[in-house]
Amino acid sequence: MTPFSYRCTDCGRTYSRDEVRYLCPECGKSYRPGIPLTGVLEAVFDYDAIGAAFDQARPDWNLFCPVETAFHPPLPVGNTPMARVDRLAAELGLGELWVKNDGLNPSGSLKDRASFLVAAEARRLGIDLIVAASTGNAASALAAVCASAGLKALIFVPEKAPKAKLVQMVLYGATVVPVKGTYDDAFRLSLEYTEKRGGLNRNTAYHPLTIEGKKTAGLEIWAQAGFRVPDAIFVSVGDGVIIGGVHKAFVDLRRAGLIDRLPRLIGVQAESSDAIHRYVETGVYADAANPTTRADSISVTCPSNAHGARRAVQESGGLTLTVTDDEILSAQAALAARTGIFTEPAGATAYAGLVKLQAGAKALPSGARAVILATGNGLKDVEAPLSRISIPPAIEPRLESLPR
Amino acid sequence: MTPFSYRCTDCGRTYSRDEVRYLCPECGKSYRPGIPLTGVLEAVFDYDAIGAAFDQARPDWNLFCPVETAFHPPLPVGNTPMARVDRLAAELGLGELWVKNDGLNPSGSLKDRASFLVAAEARRLGIDLIVAASTGNAASALAAVCASAGLKALIFVPEKAPKAKLVQMVLYGATVVPVKGTYDDAFRLSLEYTEKRGGLNRNTAYHPLTIEGKKTAGLEIWAQAGFRVPDAIFVSVGDGVIIGGVHKAFVDLRRAGLIDRLPRLIGVQAESSDAIHRYVETGVYADAANPTTRADSISVTCPSNAHGARRAVQESGGLTLTVTDDEILSAQAALAARTGIFTEPAGATAYAGLVKLQAGAKALPSGARAVILATGNGLKDVEAPLSRISIPPAIEPRLESLPR
Repeated sequence: MTPFSYRCTDCGRTYSRDEVRYLCPECGKSYRPGIPLTGVLEAVFDYDAIGAAFDQARPDWNLFCPVETAFHPPLPVGNTPMARVDRLAAELGLGELWVKNDGLNPSGSLKDRASFLVAAEARRLGIDLIVAASTGNAASALAAVCASAGLKALIFVPEKAPKAKLVQMVLYGATVVPVKGTYDDAFRLSLEYTEKRGGLNRNTAYHPLTIEGKKTAGLEIWAQAGFRVPDAIFVSVGDGVIIGGVHKAFVDLRRAGLIDRLPRLIGVQAESSDAIHRYVETGVYADAANPTTRADSISVTCPSNAHGARRAVQESGGLTLTVTDDEILSAQAALAARTGIFTEPAGATAYAGLVKLQAGAKALPSGARAVILATGNGLKDVEAPLSRISIPPAIEPRLESLPR
Repeated sequence: MTPFSYRCTDCGRTYSRDEVRYLCPECGKSYRPGIPLTGVLEAVFDYDAIGAAFDQARPDWNLFCPVETAFHPPLPVGNTPMARVDRLAAELGLGELWVKNDGLNPSGSLKDRASFLVAAEARRLGIDLIVAASTGNAASALAAVCASAGLKALIFVPEKAPKAKLVQMVLYGATVVPVKGTYDDAFRLSLEYTEKRGGLNRNTAYHPLTIEGKKTAGLEIWAQAGFRVPDAIFVSVGDGVIIGGVHKAFVDLRRAGLIDRLPRLIGVQAESSDAIHRYVETGVYADAANPTTRADSISVTCPSNAHGARRAVQESGGLTLTVTDDEILSAQAALAARTGIFTEPAGATAYAGLVKLQAGAKALPSGARAVILATGNGLKDVEAPLSRISIPPAIEPRLESLPR
């Protein structure tokens, strides 16, 4: 841990970590559920201290961490493998290509990183309950980390959430409360709960340490690519917090003097869940009208971190694009068959974006070094690819039955 | 890689690695599909060389590896996290308890380790096809590693295998051939295929490097426990190859002079799939009459490595025991809720065995240091726990609807 303060990404005011908890007290006033967050806080560290202490031979990521290690849960999170995939790089006209496989976190997604840090913060504050609204990866991640840390997890889910999606969080011992209505109703109730009854709210970007947690994926990418900044990192985008976290990693590294440029962040959205893409392209924010994508982890009407995601893309000289569900599911199968990495549809969305980009006018130049961030495990949702595979009819158990 | 030769575990004859491929040419003669393997080969290394070169500060596991790194597939396998779970240790009257989470391998199970090494061997031999019979983790592991290595995978499955079990291997690009009849018919056909048409056969223990691959889990356990030998390691047992591989790790470490004792291996079987348990207890081998356990990864009629598993238990001063399916599914939920680790039923079987052992006369003494090997990811089979969880009815989206 290195000393830090919070700075509002809208007004620039700074606060000590014990003065504020979720949003900037000024800018957050204009926030109401149903619009992208305003007054999101950013952790600003003593970067001279980080730069002086960091040693590539023994990288200590805790230097970049805003919570003391004594409070960290005992569940190992992160440090996921990054595979170098040379055949795929050659196919796509790239110099180097890597796949960061964050589906190999304990609960199966990158979101474990955010929950880990929020759970550490809860322990620091002496709070024994963490509250969230989610039906998916964030809730399972919260439940897993709370189980490990001996904390209680309270999760509000919309009543229509399929039971199979809830298996993980229930097994991890979370209290799951189905709420009549939509996800937005569950979300509002979770905010009301922590305001009036207590507990720490883990909703994404609302608690600033979710971005800091996700940042660790970016730090590892830098190290695993040989302590070199990739030319481009492809990130699937739903609420915009993961791309914000990856960006923050490289911002922190640059502020600490450890790198001298940022990787271009390429945000890839599903066609029907494209609020951030349109915001980046037009400068005008509007909700996604009707997100129907099969990539449920990035199916979002109103992305909580829309403003932060747009900044991340613009500051890094990146871009956004959209892909169809057909492109996503094809990319999922192609990535598995070429690399041995089975990622959920949302994770494959990043690869679908790379394929699409390389086929068009904005293709990365040959020799470029790129990273695909695979955010979740394919085992999270075997139904998605199931409809697209076919199994041949059974043969008699004799070698002659098998064509050569 | 360190030079090694193969030694038959039955007759003790030794061979160079290019003289033999699967079983001891003499003892293997008495093998026929449907009985435990005879003539299983063991890799015997130049242990002086390993002992001289190994450095705890920079552990190089390739010293223990029988295939040159130049042939290794580009998919990172192994190096899975091991969580220290102090609260659970205290509950069970142990000094230290660790959970080695091998479900965080790329295809979701420990079997990636075996497939990785067999794929490396295929590349060394210039063979571009690997063949296996399996419906489960071994086949998915083979398909994943072959996808990464640019090799073909041919997998024979019984015709009744559920399609959901085949999703992973099909996505990874394997050729999946359903075979009319039972698993035994598929197994026989896979042997016939490699005998008459070629390819490398990856069936477990039949190819000796499957045990060497699984060995790496044991090496990592030693390192992650602080380069100390645990008092006991709990391993779920189906065909007996994983327990054989873990045993081989510590045998190799002892032969290299790096440790001076073996951990006790505690083999845990499902009650209906208990052939190895009975073999250890009585000295007489007989098939499991009717394996019906929900822990499908350890549901085995005739364990291929029955002889090797019995030796591993006996040489290590360990023991075997059985648990019921109810105990397994309870253990799966309890482990998830206490540690944040969600392992498939077969993985939780090891923990169920620990719970049962600690409640009886053969309990490990207080202060003992134990490891649970969680062999597969819980996401492999969400149906298993689904029937045991209940979700409360939905509430109105108002705080007052929620009891305090």
